[in-house]
Amino acid sequence: MSSLRFIHETLPQRVVLDSGRVIERVLSEAEQLGMSRAMLISTEGTHEVADKLATALSPAEHWRDAVQHVPREIADAATAAARDANADGVISIGGGSATGLAKAVALETSLPIIAVPTTYAASEATPVWGITEERTKTTGIDPLVLPRVVVYDADLVATLPQDMAIASGLNAMAHCVDSLWAPKTDPINRALSLESARALAKALRALAADGGQEAREQALYGCYLSGVAFASAGSGLHHKICHVLGGTFNLPHAETHAVVLRYVTALNLPAVPEIAEELAQALGSDDAITELNRLYQDIGAPSSLAELGMPEEGIAEAVDRVLAAVPAGNPMHATHDNITALITAAFHGDDPARINEFVEGRTQ
Amino acid sequence: MSSLRFIHETLPQRVVLDSGRVIERVLSEAEQLGMSRAMLISTEGTHEVADKLATALSPAEHWRDAVQHVPREIADAATAAARDANADGVISIGGGSATGLAKAVALETSLPIIAVPTTYAASEATPVWGITEERTKTTGIDPLVLPRVVVYDADLVATLPQDMAIASGLNAMAHCVDSLWAPKTDPINRALSLESARALAKALRALAADGGQEAREQALYGCYLSGVAFASAGSGLHHKICHVLGGTFNLPHAETHAVVLRYVTALNLPAVPEIAEELAQALGSDDAITELNRLYQDIGAPSSLAELGMPEEGIAEAVDRVLAAVPAGNPMHATHDNITALITAAFHGDDPARINEFVEGRTQ
Repeated sequence: MSSLRFIHETLPQRVVLDSGRVIERVLSEAEQLGMSRAMLISTEGTHEVADKLATALSPAEHWRDAVQHVPREIADAATAAARDANADGVISIGGGSATGLAKAVALETSLPIIAVPTTYAASEATPVWGITEERTKTTGIDPLVLPRVVVYDADLVATLPQDMAIASGLNAMAHCVDSLWAPKTDPINRALSLESARALAKALRALAADGGQEAREQALYGCYLSGVAFASAGSGLHHKICHVLGGTFNLPHAETHAVVLRYVTALNLPAVPEIAEELAQALGSDDAITELNRLYQDIGAPSSLAELGMPEEGIAEAVDRVLAAVPAGNPMHATHDNITALITAAFHGDDPARINEFVEGRTQ
Repeated sequence: MSSLRFIHETLPQRVVLDSGRVIERVLSEAEQLGMSRAMLISTEGTHEVADKLATALSPAEHWRDAVQHVPREIADAATAAARDANADGVISIGGGSATGLAKAVALETSLPIIAVPTTYAASEATPVWGITEERTKTTGIDPLVLPRVVVYDADLVATLPQDMAIASGLNAMAHCVDSLWAPKTDPINRALSLESARALAKALRALAADGGQEAREQALYGCYLSGVAFASAGSGLHHKICHVLGGTFNLPHAETHAVVLRYVTALNLPAVPEIAEELAQALGSDDAITELNRLYQDIGAPSSLAELGMPEEGIAEAVDRVLAAVPAGNPMHATHDNITALITAAFHGDDPARINEFVEGRTQ
């Protein structure tokens, strides 16, 4: 038994998962929060359910123009609309775009948010906001923007294409695995991460097989906890690598996370045998990497950076940028050799176990 | 995979575990909360560390008279003292008595609490308050009384007698196991319960062996999560039984919970095979009851209601009272037969597996 020392901050949130009942659940949650003049926010893909909710709710304002990356003009216009309507709360229906716009409004107005997610993005579980101005995204953390209530309904993710659902579920798996060694990792967010990994491993196989309601419910649940754990633990090595790759080569977000996950895990696990055992157990196996390999094969997951469009000649630049961004406290000491091995293996989609040639004897 | 439907409410709290550094941690947390005129509350056993803190902190008021069960007169006097001192926060150092008095003050004044626990009572993790008037304890739930910050230091529980530490640790284990089937159980509080059971099983063996710092840290951590899970899931069958036994026969609190735990677990687990497997895994075994039996033997836990002073002729009355209090949704249908078997076996300290004779084919 080792010594224990941590600080954990639990953020307040109410989460409801009740498939097929989104309208009545949102109405009752709005009533409990005393919202009688809500501003409703929807996006192109969610007008149908939003219109049904609008009929039931009679919102003070229905903002239908949430778009990706929360442009500053739209954030400002939506905030002004909330004020003009004298809104007493914000209800967002959609993925990251709708939740993100609701957060931008809450940041200025302090209005409480009820988030109704229609993807596996998990922004609803975090106090992170982002606003894009002149092609630069500014992000921040503010407890004000954490939705007070999240309402999940598995019917709302039923139309997500299977490949998107799988990439998105693996993106969530990456959030939770990275939380196991991120800078603010602690036993509580690790326990939530492992529970998330457990749910996601089951959900991903089922999503690939039939995508039925139970699979979507487990996926929403697993994604939710991955967001909670990630918000608490912060960004670990995995996220730094994906940030470098995404920013430098403009690779698709969820797919990049899906590809990189196994390689970072293979690098770090040998340095943290107790966590390796817990992760394996959560995935239902003796060995986490073997099980992740099997899972990726079973569900047809994206498996190489090459297939996502990264140029091979970019590897050296990526390695330098990653080395400059390695978080303090990463379990395995990052070197030019092992990060090169990691990115090269991820580029080709090689067996992640191969990068372990470089890690022996280099634990911090 | 089964269908998922739940409501989970996460309450906000910051928890710090840092052994040997209680004074500096409390000072820094008070500063972060903007407390400059704190009211300090201590009890007979905690004046020494409270005086040290008082020297460092210069509180606006130091209330030294917290006692068991929070008598109404003391709650009122302490509240008046907080107002007279124009206090801007409450810092409690002690077990349930100190935390309980801080909660009573917060209930009237809305002042934020920093709780510094010196036992394994876990009241610091719940929004439950209690005040005793004319020998009747009134309890309630109010988010106002949940401490904003908890500061744990394993040095503060070092002087707890071993038998009290073990009974108290098993009381926490009972909180977490009962959360697995309590009325508001959900996947999130179950995950926290299982993590708590994992920590407590390790901690209890170590407490019985040497009671070193690591053991006390794991015990504080496990107790904390048991309180979080219990506050979220509510009281299950175990708590109803202990409430009946404690109230009817005036049995000691923690020891009664310690004795009853194995029997309720043996009754319920056959009805929830998935949870039975997860609990066994958390305890590090294939079978939860076998492992609990082994744990009880290893640590010399209290094992029968007879040894706690319950009269044998009280069994029939206890059964009737328990049957009237069985929570809706208990996994195993409670009958006169199986509750009699449960209480009789617990009275004698018989093998808990024996009560399973009565449960076959009676799942709801």
